[in-house]
Amino acid sequence: MEIIGFIAAFLTTAAFLPQVYKTWKTKDVSGLSLPMLLLFFTGIVLWLIYGIQIKSPSMIFANCVTILSSFLLVYFKIKYAKK
Amino acid sequence: MEIIGFIAAFLTTAAFLPQVYKTWKTKDVSGLSLPMLLLFFTGIVLWLIYGIQIKSPSMIFANCVTILSSFLLVYFKIKYAKK
Repeated sequence: MEIIGFIAAFLTTAAFLPQVYKTWKTKDVSGLSLPMLLLFFTGIVLWLIYGIQIKSPSMIFANCVTILSSFLLVYFKIKYAKK
Repeated sequence: MEIIGFIAAFLTTAAFLPQVYKTWKTKDVSGLSLPMLLLFFTGIVLWLIYGIQIKSPSMIFANCVTILSSFLLVYFKIKYAKK
């Protein structure tokens, strides 16, 4: 039932995009914690490796998209952090 | 290599907990979007069903924890929303 995984992937990645858009528009990164972003990013990379190992197309798809989203948040956090 | 899934589960669920704690302490839910929380919650429920179908212990564990965390955020959002 790979379709359930793909619907799940769509919903959870879609829920993440408004945060990326809001951070990009407002450049307000005060509410974002760099250590937590890095924990999350590392976790998603491991989920991708796990998804590849268990050959789950929906996990590979979802985690590729989320790696991109969370990488952007890490980048914005570093770029827009108050000096 | 179920261990990779469990490390991934630990990292991604751990990154979610500070948000729950912060929302609980501050009661500030202005930055949280209810439709997005509901999308995310629905997505996580589907990931859990998918994890059960593909018999992935680490996905079942991670999604049970995240269902609880995101349910709390939905509850706080409704409870603390400005009237």
